[in-house]
Amino acid sequence: MASYDRAITVFSPDGQLLQVQYAQEAVRRGSAVVGVRGANCVVLAVEKKMVPQLQVDRTEKKIVILDDHIAMGFAGVRADARVLVSRAQIECQSYRLTVDDAVTIDYISRYIAGIMQQHTQNNGRRPFGVSYIIGGFDSDGPHIFQTEPSGTYYEWKACCTGRGEKTVREYLEKNYSADKVSSEHDTIKLAVRSLMEVQYGEKELEVAVLRKSAPLSILTKEAVNSYMADSQKEKEEAQK
Amino acid sequence: MASYDRAITVFSPDGQLLQVQYAQEAVRRGSAVVGVRGANCVVLAVEKKMVPQLQVDRTEKKIVILDDHIAMGFAGVRADARVLVSRAQIECQSYRLTVDDAVTIDYISRYIAGIMQQHTQNNGRRPFGVSYIIGGFDSDGPHIFQTEPSGTYYEWKACCTGRGEKTVREYLEKNYSADKVSSEHDTIKLAVRSLMEVQYGEKELEVAVLRKSAPLSILTKEAVNSYMADSQKEKEEAQK
Amino acid sequence: MASYDRAITVFSPDGQLLQVQYAQEAVRRGSAVVGVRGANCVVLAVEKKMVPQLQVDRTEKKIVILDDHIAMGFAGVRADARVLVSRAQIECQSYRLTVDDAVTIDYISRYIAGIMQQHTQNNGRRPFGVSYIIGGFDSDGPHIFQTEPSGTYYEWKACCTGRGEKTVREYLEKNYSADKVSSEHDTIKLAVRSLMEVQYGEKELEVAVLRKSAPLSILTKEAVNSYMADSQKEKEEAQK
Amino acid sequence: MASYDRAITVFSPDGQLLQVQYAQEAVRRGSAVVGVRGANCVVLAVEKKMVPQLQVDRTEKKIVILDDHIAMGFAGVRADARVLVSRAQIECQSYRLTVDDAVTIDYISRYIAGIMQQHTQNNGRRPFGVSYIIGGFDSDGPHIFQTEPSGTYYEWKACCTGRGEKTVREYLEKNYSADKVSSEHDTIKLAVRSLMEVQYGEKELEVAVLRKSAPLSILTKEAVNSYMADSQKEKEEAQK
Amino acid sequence: MASYDRAITVFSPDGQLLQVQYAQEAVRRGSAVVGVRGANCVVLAVEKKMVPQLQVDRTEKKIVILDDHIAMGFAGVRADARVLVSRAQIECQSYRLTVDDAVTIDYISRYIAGIMQQHTQNNGRRPFGVSYIIGGFDSDGPHIFQTEPSGTYYEWKACCTGRGEKTVREYLEKNYSADKVSSEHDTIKLAVRSLMEVQYGEKELEVAVLRKSAPLSILTKEAVNSYMADSQKEKEEAQK
Amino acid sequence: MASYDRAITVFSPDGQLLQVQYAQEAVRRGSAVVGVRGANCVVLAVEKKMVPQLQVDRTEKKIVILDDHIAMGFAGVRADARVLVSRAQIECQSYRLTVDDAVTIDYISRYIAGIMQQHTQNNGRRPFGVSYIIGGFDSDGPHIFQTEPSGTYYEWKACCTGRGEKTVREYLEKNYSADKVSSEHDTIKLAVRSLMEVQYGEKELEVAVLRKSAPLSILTKEAVNSYMADSQKEKEEAQK
Amino acid sequence: MASYDRAITVFSPDGQLLQVQYAQEAVRRGSAVVGVRGANCVVLAVEKKMVPQLQVDRTEKKIVILDDHIAMGFAGVRADARVLVSRAQIECQSYRLTVDDAVTIDYISRYIAGIMQQHTQNNGRRPFGVSYIIGGFDSDGPHIFQTEPSGTYYEWKACCTGRGEKTVREYLEKNYSADKVSSEHDTIKLAVRSLMEVQYGEKELEVAVLRKSAPLSILTKEAVNSYMADSQKEKEEAQK
Repeated sequence: MASYDRAITVFSPDGQLLQVQYAQEAVRRGSAVVGVRGANCVVLAVEKKMVPQLQVDRTEKKIVILDDHIAMGFAGVRADARVLVSRAQIECQSYRLTVDDAVTIDYISRYIAGIMQQHTQNNGRRPFGVSYIIGGFDSDGPHIFQTEPSGTYYEWKACCTGRGEKTVREYLEKNYSADKVSSEHDTIKLAVRSLMEVQYGEKELEVAVLRKSAPLSILTKEAVNSYMADSQKEKEEAQK
Repeated sequence: MASYDRAITVFSPDGQLLQVQYAQEAVRRGSAVVGVRGANCVVLAVEKKMVPQLQVDRTEKKIVILDDHIAMGFAGVRADARVLVSRAQIECQSYRLTVDDAVTIDYISRYIAGIMQQHTQNNGRRPFGVSYIIGGFDSDGPHIFQTEPSGTYYEWKACCTGRGEKTVREYLEKNYSADKVSSEHDTIKLAVRSLMEVQYGEKELEVAVLRKSAPLSILTKEAVNSYMADSQKEKEEAQK
Repeated sequence: MASYDRAITVFSPDGQLLQVQYAQEAVRRGSAVVGVRGANCVVLAVEKKMVPQLQVDRTEKKIVILDDHIAMGFAGVRADARVLVSRAQIECQSYRLTVDDAVTIDYISRYIAGIMQQHTQNNGRRPFGVSYIIGGFDSDGPHIFQTEPSGTYYEWKACCTGRGEKTVREYLEKNYSADKVSSEHDTIKLAVRSLMEVQYGEKELEVAVLRKSAPLSILTKEAVNSYMADSQKEKEEAQK
Repeated sequence: MASYDRAITVFSPDGQLLQVQYAQEAVRRGSAVVGVRGANCVVLAVEKKMVPQLQVDRTEKKIVILDDHIAMGFAGVRADARVLVSRAQIECQSYRLTVDDAVTIDYISRYIAGIMQQHTQNNGRRPFGVSYIIGGFDSDGPHIFQTEPSGTYYEWKACCTGRGEKTVREYLEKNYSADKVSSEHDTIKLAVRSLMEVQYGEKELEVAVLRKSAPLSILTKEAVNSYMADSQKEKEEAQK
Repeated sequence: MASYDRAITVFSPDGQLLQVQYAQEAVRRGSAVVGVRGANCVVLAVEKKMVPQLQVDRTEKKIVILDDHIAMGFAGVRADARVLVSRAQIECQSYRLTVDDAVTIDYISRYIAGIMQQHTQNNGRRPFGVSYIIGGFDSDGPHIFQTEPSGTYYEWKACCTGRGEKTVREYLEKNYSADKVSSEHDTIKLAVRSLMEVQYGEKELEVAVLRKSAPLSILTKEAVNSYMADSQKEKEEAQK
Repeated sequence: MASYDRAITVFSPDGQLLQVQYAQEAVRRGSAVVGVRGANCVVLAVEKKMVPQLQVDRTEKKIVILDDHIAMGFAGVRADARVLVSRAQIECQSYRLTVDDAVTIDYISRYIAGIMQQHTQNNGRRPFGVSYIIGGFDSDGPHIFQTEPSGTYYEWKACCTGRGEKTVREYLEKNYSADKVSSEHDTIKLAVRSLMEVQYGEKELEVAVLRKSAPLSILTKEAVNSYMADSQKEKEEAQK
Repeated sequence: MASYDRAITVFSPDGQLLQVQYAQEAVRRGSAVVGVRGANCVVLAVEKKMVPQLQVDRTEKKIVILDDHIAMGFAGVRADARVLVSRAQIECQSYRLTVDDAVTIDYISRYIAGIMQQHTQNNGRRPFGVSYIIGGFDSDGPHIFQTEPSGTYYEWKACCTGRGEKTVREYLEKNYSADKVSSEHDTIKLAVRSLMEVQYGEKELEVAVLRKSAPLSILTKEAVNSYMADSQKEKEEAQK
């Protein structure tokens, strides 16, 4: 099957676009990202890859702001991610100027996914090796979308991508319920707890919360650690 | 034969365009879609792929509206599908502005198929891995068309594409008759029943009905379930 | 010889353009088409491929009108065929506007063949996998032309292309004479009879007749069936 | 040596352009063409390939008029030939308009050869698989030129190309003399007789004569047959 | 895996961009570069490759000034490095003219990384085989960033790239602390000492210091040698 | 080494441009050309390839005039040669119009060589398979230059290219001296005699003489034959 | 490793650009060039390849003038060299017109190296197979730079390139000192002597001297021979 995967523009005999699948593999190698839609908030939590000791945290951010009301986490090729972040930010501004209104989460997700699709069909370009979880508030409340290298996008109540995606998703599916995300605290807890499912040594997380008509708030390290400790305890108890 | 299928612009020695056939394979991997033309309605029914538990239904829609009087279901590469949906929607609007009339189902199907053909003949592009069933009302009544990755399109009384296409088509051919689609209820029943032919575990369907000079109506889950239950019963009886 | 046929722009060591030959193969896989020039008419007859039961005949048409006085049948890749049909129709209109006269059958055939040739010499495009039989009335009477994927075109008294081309042509060569096409009825009979040579199960034909200064007339199913029955009888008698 | 002939733009290690040679092979597969320069005329004679019985002769013409005083025969890929014929005809008209004089045979031959050379040096195009014999009258009398796929062109007293080129040329070299072409009749006879050297079954020839300040005259079938009969007799006598 | 690394635009089956990794290899072959952020200064130290005896030092500079307040060292393909240096210098000037303010270190690092990313996704270009350490003063104090061939960039307290990167980084991680970089002297010492970890024969270093609102100062050879002697002594003592 | 010669733009591991060498091979297959600079003249002599018996000499010319004072002979691919001849002739005229002076032999040689070099470095084009000997008079006397497929050019007192180049050059080197080219007659003799070194059957030569401020003069056949006879005699005597 | 060197735009797995290395090999095959910076002069000396006996020296020049104050020698592909010489000469003039000052040696070297780098990173072009030694006078005295196919450039006190580069460089390193280049005579001697290190049969050298505010002076053959004789003597004595 080797010969079908060298050019992005061809189908394999069984109807697959292999380059897109390989790009998905690049996503799977990225760090885990979780998005959970609470009753009154959107929580994005990202597992930070072992930041080298001397690196300054600030540039290692995996959660970026697209517009006042939209934030986004990603898994996959970091440099690819930045390209689409820039274009999405510009689109948000440009939309505001043209339409005199903010983009909806759906709109900007479709916009990003559209660019990603083009990179799977036009020759001379490789797909983007990145998957985004986009969360924010529209006039009708909180929303979370996810895009994939193929250019598909879906809305979710809670979703995850990157390393250990399957494990995290299974946890979320077992544990997500309207009850569990009724308060902001519980929503954060669920997000953090789900990422604890993918264990490896010491873990560092970045957690962001979006509230209606409020700027993005990034949890302090202490707050995150507290949530992590709780989650750890809960997990250990559950294992007993 | 391996060497003929790597570039989309060449024929194999027996006169085949293999890339187009592989794209058709991508369609065959998609979920099943059925379109049935009733006496006074057009029914589109789509088998929904096992929506992940936490996904929001809304973005999983496989039936989209092109214009007030035209809806469309598809099977195949989801992100490819969206590209043509956008272009078709724009064409519908643009046609309305230019000609001051609505497009016919035939016109918009030909338009979509034309773009699909271009992608089978120009270098540097792969074919679209998607097949559409397009239904709507022209001034002379209901119509259903189907397009394929090769860029061909046909009009049908009832048609299907995607997973299990052969089985569903055989059912439709045996059971479609003017009688059976004289009422809207029977038309829906036929569409739903035909999709029941392709069995796998629990099934979820999305069913849309177009009536003359009325907006597209998507059946409620309850309605769909009721039709499915009826169909199931009927099927079991038939098997006895 | 494998290595010479992957790119359309190269000759094989024995001076062949293999891609053009493979495109011809695609024509040979198409349904049979016959064109017969009568004394006062042009008859085009096309074998219809087993139309699926629920398909609406209308879009399965293999005979299309280019201009008031010109019709055209084709064999080969259906979606390719449509591209050239559109361009030829536009050329007919545009010619009328510019020259204030109708195109001749020769002119429009050369026009179509020219585009086909370009696709055999310019890189990045594959040849058209289609062959046309173009019939119509010029001021000097009826004409029939045929184009091929290589971009050649010829005028014929009677010709055929597609499946079983050799058999049908042999029949026509044995049976065509000025006498046999003196009346419209006999001309149609010859066209239908020649297609009966290529037997496979039940057959459906589409037959079109062009008369001087009259719109294209498509025979009714009953008329066609009657001609077919006659032909069948004649054939059986001949075989005795 | 296989690897040097797939792209037209490269030399083989022994300094050959293989694609050009293969195109020459396509010429060699074409029907035989002869041009003979008489004292007061130019004769072009072309062996017509077995015209299918029902084909209309007119489009099978292998001798075309470029301008009032120039005609041209060709061997090789028919559809390629037409492309250059069109461009040469336009150049003839355009030259007349610009310079207010007719092109010389040398000029238009160089023009055609120039386009043919470009197709041997620019990437993405294959050479033309065609060779022309161009005859006509300049102010200083009759001229015959020949062009080849490589883009070379030469002037000849008598020349031939296509099938059996070597045999025909040898005949011409043995038999051409100022005496033998002093009258138009003898010039035609020489041209026809030389083509009789390449025997295969029944033969059909197309013969054209250009005289000073007179339109091209195509011999009637009877005239050609008469010349052929004479030639045949002569040949048989010679063989005794 | 060989087949995935020849074109820069494709992913390997495990989601890697091999060309980017090979470019990183080119960086690893370059000379070692260190950047250390002090309390009040930024120190860049570069190991100079054995300058040929007769070469004039001046052009062997591995530390270049982008703007009054920003300097940059690099490891990897020298000629590639120069291309981005020029573009970055122009951007610095252009930014000043447009915004009437100096670029931030973050801004210019992102700018450089952006160009580098483009070279990993667009066909027909190879990635840049170079990694930069960019240091300077923003209004909020000193900053050091590093860019990589993939187009990623990070901020660091102290970082290194090129030959022996791992060894140097480990030294820096063990020895960097706020204390150790409180004075300019100590900061320089740490930078020089860390480069001493990668031993090979006699070594020559180039050391540059950026202070707030002061032009870049390049240490004299004597000064560097003195720091190196101290470092050497310290190292030997440590080894005892 | 096979893999380095298929694309013109790459070096082989030992630093060679193989396509250029193969083009040189095409030159070596061409007929021999000699240029000799006399005291008051420039002589170009070309071995004419066995002109087919019926070919008209005129188009077989291997010596062409670029400008009143410059002539040029060539060896190699004839159709390639013509392309550069045209461009050089145009440049000569254009230079005259712009600068109001004639081009120097050096200038036009550099011009031709420049185009030839471009064809060795830009993708999508093959080198020219031709070598020119360019002779003429500048204000300071006669000059002879030679260009090669690589795009190099040199000035010579006497030079040769094409078939048997080595043999002819050795003869020239042994026999060229200021004495031997003091008169026009001796210069012609030397040129003709040197070509006699490359023996094959009967030979035909084309000899052109350029004198200061006089048009190019082509020797008559008789004159050439006389020189050839003398040379032959001399050669035979020398061999005794 | 074969597969990494066919396209110029890719890295090999160990981070090398093989095409650039092969171009360097082309330089190594060129004749030796030496540049020595004296106290008050710049000396360029080039080993002339065995000039064919009848070639006119003038076009074999390996030392060219870029501007009044800058000269340049080169090793490698001659036709490539000329391309950059032309562009550099134009840049010198253009700079003078724009800035109203002469270019510095550094500026024009960077300019040339910049073009060379572009040819190592953009697809569809091969690197330049040439290395330059550029010498001249800036306001601050004499300078010598060297450029390489990779696009790197350095300033030197004395440098060499081409055949036997290593041997010559070693000689220069052992013998260059401020004393030995204090006078013009000694500087020339050093340059000539160093080239004598690479022995092969009889040798011919071209030596050029640049003095402050004086035109380039090319040594006469006699002068060069005298220097060579002295060097030879010195060398023989040294060997005793």
